[in-house]
Amino acid sequence: MSDPFVVVGADAAGLSAASKFRREAPDREVVVFEKGRWISYAYCGMPYFIEGRVERMSDLLSLSPSEVDDRGIDLRRGHEAVTVDPDAKTVTVETADSNSFEQPYDDLLVATGGRASTGPFDVRDLDGAFTLHDMDAAAAIDAYVADPGAYDPDRADVSAVDRERVERNAAMPAPETAAIVGGGYVGVEMAEALVGRGLDVHLFHRSGHLLPDFGEAVGERVADELTAKGVTVHTNAPVEELVGDDRIEAVALDEGDPVDADLAIVGVGIRPNTELLDGTGVETGEGGAIRTDEYGRTSLPDVYAAGDCATAIHAVTGEEAWMPLGLTANRTGRAIGATIADDPSPVGEIAGTAAVKAFDMEAGRVGLVEDEAAREAGFDPVRETVTAGSRSGYYPGAAPTDVTLVADRDTGRLIGGSIVGPDRAAVRIDTLATALEADMTVPEVERLDLAYAPPFSPVWDPILVAAKVLNGTLDGD
Amino acid sequence: MSDPFVVVGADAAGLSAASKFRREAPDREVVVFEKGRWISYAYCGMPYFIEGRVERMSDLLSLSPSEVDDRGIDLRRGHEAVTVDPDAKTVTVETADSNSFEQPYDDLLVATGGRASTGPFDVRDLDGAFTLHDMDAAAAIDAYVADPGAYDPDRADVSAVDRERVERNAAMPAPETAAIVGGGYVGVEMAEALVGRGLDVHLFHRSGHLLPDFGEAVGERVADELTAKGVTVHTNAPVEELVGDDRIEAVALDEGDPVDADLAIVGVGIRPNTELLDGTGVETGEGGAIRTDEYGRTSLPDVYAAGDCATAIHAVTGEEAWMPLGLTANRTGRAIGATIADDPSPVGEIAGTAAVKAFDMEAGRVGLVEDEAAREAGFDPVRETVTAGSRSGYYPGAAPTDVTLVADRDTGRLIGGSIVGPDRAAVRIDTLATALEADMTVPEVERLDLAYAPPFSPVWDPILVAAKVLNGTLDGD
Repeated sequence: MSDPFVVVGADAAGLSAASKFRREAPDREVVVFEKGRWISYAYCGMPYFIEGRVERMSDLLSLSPSEVDDRGIDLRRGHEAVTVDPDAKTVTVETADSNSFEQPYDDLLVATGGRASTGPFDVRDLDGAFTLHDMDAAAAIDAYVADPGAYDPDRADVSAVDRERVERNAAMPAPETAAIVGGGYVGVEMAEALVGRGLDVHLFHRSGHLLPDFGEAVGERVADELTAKGVTVHTNAPVEELVGDDRIEAVALDEGDPVDADLAIVGVGIRPNTELLDGTGVETGEGGAIRTDEYGRTSLPDVYAAGDCATAIHAVTGEEAWMPLGLTANRTGRAIGATIADDPSPVGEIAGTAAVKAFDMEAGRVGLVEDEAAREAGFDPVRETVTAGSRSGYYPGAAPTDVTLVADRDTGRLIGGSIVGPDRAAVRIDTLATALEADMTVPEVERLDLAYAPPFSPVWDPILVAAKVLNGTLDGD
Repeated sequence: MSDPFVVVGADAAGLSAASKFRREAPDREVVVFEKGRWISYAYCGMPYFIEGRVERMSDLLSLSPSEVDDRGIDLRRGHEAVTVDPDAKTVTVETADSNSFEQPYDDLLVATGGRASTGPFDVRDLDGAFTLHDMDAAAAIDAYVADPGAYDPDRADVSAVDRERVERNAAMPAPETAAIVGGGYVGVEMAEALVGRGLDVHLFHRSGHLLPDFGEAVGERVADELTAKGVTVHTNAPVEELVGDDRIEAVALDEGDPVDADLAIVGVGIRPNTELLDGTGVETGEGGAIRTDEYGRTSLPDVYAAGDCATAIHAVTGEEAWMPLGLTANRTGRAIGATIADDPSPVGEIAGTAAVKAFDMEAGRVGLVEDEAAREAGFDPVRETVTAGSRSGYYPGAAPTDVTLVADRDTGRLIGGSIVGPDRAAVRIDTLATALEADMTVPEVERLDLAYAPPFSPVWDPILVAAKVLNGTLDGD
């Protein structure tokens, strides 16, 4: 074997690329370096593990190291790639026992992912303060929340887990009050998880509505749902500081008294891990992520990037965007694996399609939902939000569903939308995502032949109702 | 008021047209003739009424006659339009008391709907034998199924109901065994409804799989679900005859012994009501329905047709099709109302999108699902069916979802598909309907940015999995 394809990072993007490459180019070598012990885990499943809805940490693993071996991939855990020399086409790799070596590459994929931003907060030095950035953090939070003595160590049933950290957290007194800093996905999902574990939960969000990417209509209904389920939602409430000596005691706000808490979860966003390419002169773009083209190529020859560390092309704007999401990582990795195996495959565009669950409320979003984003991209946004039934009114279970559609005034083109409601609302966002990627106008959306059946959708699906109303507005009615 | 717009038929298409027209052309007259007493009812809701899931018949009414009056529409029930003279531009109308008059029209909409086909079966002369073609039939079935003395007359709480027929059926001994003839929508939905009423239900279907329009993958899972819920499903079992003197006693098959039954529901399709235009020379097309163009115009000047009596243009084939479905009736009626009010509005194309519920199983279909239909339209169909999870595997409630995609071999264009499964499967069909109407190819479908969230969809949505597999087949993998 020769012409090595070297992958840095053994999660969704890296292993998708290695697996696809291995199938399409069985004669070439593929090596995957992973600095830690974990590979291929479901980041998005961690809140559900902490909630207890998922019983075992091992359920969140997609692939075990031995399964990766079985695919003929040379996976090396505990190997940290630290620098790249694009002229020599080598990667410097350090091993867990502090040896280092130069690994030549024919093609290189940087799939180093992202990491949780801690914002201005000092999370590491306070017991009971966490970000939710990896499986060791999930295991530690799960252990910390449990009553000492009642913790079941079989929950963290993966050999890679940081056992010492888990045991230390399990031994601490169980918290009663949780402060969640940040009302994005992680914050909303962790609020549900911690209520499920019996905690009194406070959610602090900097601005006026939760889930900023989903728009106001979604943010308000999700806040209502959280409140109805016992979460104390603080909007327009930036957290200034985590208060405590050794252990978290409270969060301090810019106004009013501190709020006591003996657990804090900081979920204020993620940042791309681009340090591997420091000093190479690689171009970076949106969000500081590594700039990539339609085949996932960086500005360095034979160096690709995929997943949470890389930019992508937005389906609506045609411009560069950085939206770290799971499908994008898997898809771009797979496409790059094929391309490097001489089967050129575009990585595809992203539409920023996302869904989130908050107790019994479901929401989805796609494209340019907020006016500011639309204007930045050169559109003149017009929007309507309608509330329509999820089923025929006479069929039990019909529930109010809010659909927001955003169009460009000049062209009538659909540029974004959101859906929120308790009855099958989230999967409906895929209809809008498809319309968006097909560059449909709102009149075209209004004429879509969507399914009607009383248990699932009224004659006029909520999406059609929204399109009808937005068309009226575009026509100047 | 002058220039009358005359509408024949006061259901979805007719009243949608009249309402839209009234709003857009407030100075012109609009008259709606309805031969019976019922207007604007939810045909698709009748099985759920019979099941008892919908408590009152009045819940199935969208609009009352007084609400129609309030809209400024001149609604005349008990007025049957019997002939049209396209040269004189008049309609001959007979009233319930056998008077008749000539109604001049400036524009005419024929929205006469369809009626249940009885096939070769003598339904009218047998007590306990029904088609489910209107609200009086639904009320009669509901009364017939009830134990004498236990029937609640408030169920049929609409003044239009044929009270004498209801009372006669309520007085008959309650049936124990039901034979449903025909395994289409009505048959499947009535099987669920009658199991819900405690009957022993036999479903007889002429061919090898139920729900022929949905394809084999759906038909088989729906049959399995019906069987699991206690329905005896007879496939390849054409019914020859309804047996009985005054009351239904059994159904006779072409092979084997007759099967005893004291209730029979015949659901073998519907036929368009076109008799009003007999003798006018109007063109008819697919299914014998009235041929219409992209604005709902017939071949006669100033005469339009909409709803179950009219053809439409199919989004995939671009050819004429006849698919009587609720959204089409509403949408085409509304568009025609606008067009006649001098706001020319295309009626839109149809994709044959439909969904059906069978107990805990949900299914949807769109486009050309069966090879025969695809070949007739000039395509070379290639298909794949995959089974994929509806959620991330670790998230409770994930259920096997079967997606069938059909593409044209030469162009790779998506031409049809179906989805079946117990977890939110039906609404997912709208994603395929949108892709189909956007003329997407299977590679384009594979690159769609669909939502990923563990409670709602795995990283690779079942639709994306199916597209990936079908792409492989198209590539000759």
